[in-house]
Amino acid sequence: MQNVDYIIRADYLLTMEGDLAVIRDGAVAVTGSDITDAGTFAGVSAKYTSKKIIEGKDRAVFPGLINTHTHAAMVYFRGLADDLPLMEWLQDHIWPAEGKWMTEEFVGDAVGLACLEMLKAGVTTYADMYFFQNAAGKKLEKIGMRGVLGAGVIDFPFTGYARAVDDYFANAENLINNFKDSDFVFPCIAPHATYTCGPDNYKRANALSEKYNVPVHTHLAETQFEVAECQKRFGKTPVEYFESIGMLSERLFAAHCVWLTDNEIELLAKRKAGVAHCIESNLKLASGFAPVPKLLSAGVRVGLGTDGAASNNDLSILGEISTAAKVHKAVSGDPTVVDSRTALLMATKIGAEILGLGDKVGSIRPGKKADLVMAGLSKPHLTPIYDIYSHLTYCLRPSDIETVMVNGKIVIERGRPTTMDEEEVLAKAREWQEKIKG
Amino acid sequence: MQNVDYIIRADYLLTMEGDLAVIRDGAVAVTGSDITDAGTFAGVSAKYTSKKIIEGKDRAVFPGLINTHTHAAMVYFRGLADDLPLMEWLQDHIWPAEGKWMTEEFVGDAVGLACLEMLKAGVTTYADMYFFQNAAGKKLEKIGMRGVLGAGVIDFPFTGYARAVDDYFANAENLINNFKDSDFVFPCIAPHATYTCGPDNYKRANALSEKYNVPVHTHLAETQFEVAECQKRFGKTPVEYFESIGMLSERLFAAHCVWLTDNEIELLAKRKAGVAHCIESNLKLASGFAPVPKLLSAGVRVGLGTDGAASNNDLSILGEISTAAKVHKAVSGDPTVVDSRTALLMATKIGAEILGLGDKVGSIRPGKKADLVMAGLSKPHLTPIYDIYSHLTYCLRPSDIETVMVNGKIVIERGRPTTMDEEEVLAKAREWQEKIKG
Repeated sequence: MQNVDYIIRADYLLTMEGDLAVIRDGAVAVTGSDITDAGTFAGVSAKYTSKKIIEGKDRAVFPGLINTHTHAAMVYFRGLADDLPLMEWLQDHIWPAEGKWMTEEFVGDAVGLACLEMLKAGVTTYADMYFFQNAAGKKLEKIGMRGVLGAGVIDFPFTGYARAVDDYFANAENLINNFKDSDFVFPCIAPHATYTCGPDNYKRANALSEKYNVPVHTHLAETQFEVAECQKRFGKTPVEYFESIGMLSERLFAAHCVWLTDNEIELLAKRKAGVAHCIESNLKLASGFAPVPKLLSAGVRVGLGTDGAASNNDLSILGEISTAAKVHKAVSGDPTVVDSRTALLMATKIGAEILGLGDKVGSIRPGKKADLVMAGLSKPHLTPIYDIYSHLTYCLRPSDIETVMVNGKIVIERGRPTTMDEEEVLAKAREWQEKIKG
Repeated sequence: MQNVDYIIRADYLLTMEGDLAVIRDGAVAVTGSDITDAGTFAGVSAKYTSKKIIEGKDRAVFPGLINTHTHAAMVYFRGLADDLPLMEWLQDHIWPAEGKWMTEEFVGDAVGLACLEMLKAGVTTYADMYFFQNAAGKKLEKIGMRGVLGAGVIDFPFTGYARAVDDYFANAENLINNFKDSDFVFPCIAPHATYTCGPDNYKRANALSEKYNVPVHTHLAETQFEVAECQKRFGKTPVEYFESIGMLSERLFAAHCVWLTDNEIELLAKRKAGVAHCIESNLKLASGFAPVPKLLSAGVRVGLGTDGAASNNDLSILGEISTAAKVHKAVSGDPTVVDSRTALLMATKIGAEILGLGDKVGSIRPGKKADLVMAGLSKPHLTPIYDIYSHLTYCLRPSDIETVMVNGKIVIERGRPTTMDEEEVLAKAREWQEKIKG
């Protein structure tokens, strides 16, 4: 009998591996930061002993959810402005607020609130695009949550962060070096979008990505306005433009991809680029409906993302799963598309893959990191149960998440954080709120 | 100083009346079943005394939410079948399950679970269409929740409920007589849809509605298939067909109304018929997108509904508010439509109006019934706060609902039911689950 640190039991164990079979009365054995084994409780308990057995009656265990696109620090602007045209929202509200408030201190504090919200909702890894990512990285190491932190790049200076374009790249290299051995922080380079970042800076970002083997995180084909601008400036639609400047690769994951031609879908598939689908943001900002069923049919890997809380207005991937599974049925007129198993794969295994973390997280498999979520099912809105995938997709709420483990360590226990002081995080957020309201 | 039964205080009081101004540090005075007064806490406490003051720091109080279309008892089929074409879902799964299981006992038990889920999520009134509504009515009286219970009518018999068509109408009159003095149960007549109920039965339902002054609750223009069938059989689109047989009136509220011509929108407005918009069901069953912004612009009163839990898969109106506010922005390409104030009006005041309860519930006004919801705001996903309407629309979750009052009586206290035994309701649901799974 081998001793392990934890045996985590579950009435319903979803590994998100292989044929997606549900393991009834399952268990996961965890040693240090890693998953040692997974299977039926009978099988696991025949092979392993542990002093710590987490019981799983009326509970489901599944891999930590992956948020493939956000701007975590924008959580401090949640609900600052809504129901406005995109450019008015950006130019009159969001950009001025960012210009006025965004500092290292702001980012560090705000990321604390974002992580608290995400962990409590079962999100264990998020991909970010912002500035001052060193502050975010330090916070993640302290909390014990994973982030693929994209150091933003734009063509113009940003006071306090980059006096000239070179500074964006210097900051990115600095971030990469600071966290090169981290279990939690995976730096990447994040050129913002085709309308804020020219081809030279995109190419330079790509070269840096290749040099350090880190992902490129960008916005792409989000709005019809962006497509029109791209065609005007470069004579090509966004993905075709990316192909022409060599941006399309397995290292790229692009948020939104709402407005795509069939040729562009094929290009994304051929170059194995990933897509971070942000359905709730795309709806709320009236961007449109990304062709997700077509992307999936073409073999493009599509993860789910919340986008920033200012345009969503929360950081819950459970909400994105449910909304994505429902909306694409109505858009395509086909109620069989983005079924519950597909939606959950997007939120876990596929999401991890597009971030370059497919060997580490996103599913429950021996050798992967122990990023696990346990949800309680004994609630009116989850009763009765006929199909656990259906319930996780269409019914599960963040408040059902009880226990969250990242890297083999419990960070949420009975719904409460173990590595953060919730009251302190909320008090800090309220201080910033009063400043921002002015 | 006048003595009242309760003074309910709130950091944010939303009456949903007048100009929708938010009352900061507000209070509602309740006497018996009624709202006596509402205003600032300072103003209310200068006029009234009460032994029971419910404190409202970091809390919002708003009117009980109105679910304008569901089939509550179908909650026992939640997740029984998903991601299927509509006809396969209905004919191979839902109808056989209903045919096999639906009895008075089933409806009584299932409605208990539905009410528990809805009350915990802040829904204080729901409009239903089903059979065996006497059982539902008894349950509602016991629990202390309001239901506009539609006695279903179809052209063919239903074993155990109606041996012949006359029985549907006899059952409806029986329901109306049984609950004519009820505070909680408001019977109505519910001819199912144009493809299951012919013009004679629609006219007969309308005559009964007129005789007793009760609403007519029906499905209308849900799918393109239905529109095509209607045109084939009657040479008219559904709303035009309804106009031709005299169904359109203030007493009618029609669920779905997804496929409408501009002329039909005008007809609904002219005849003052109400629409129960069920966005999540329409998405999940791939029915399409109801033209809600156009309906609202034309002056049609549009409420929100969950539809049955088998096609949603929950009974939360907060989810419908958020989804409706977001989806119509993307459909119309205009991020200003269905703004947060409009979405909340649909879920409260307008919803109550289309059910014929506009003088009783749906807003906080002296003389109306005390149907109130208190939600806690001191949570990561609700921090910071800049605009309370935005938060209620885009961020509030059922788990934030703490206290719910119906007819002046507290039915949910600190998130737990006071008039139901939650464990007993869940245990009963699991018994049925095992039978239904077979």
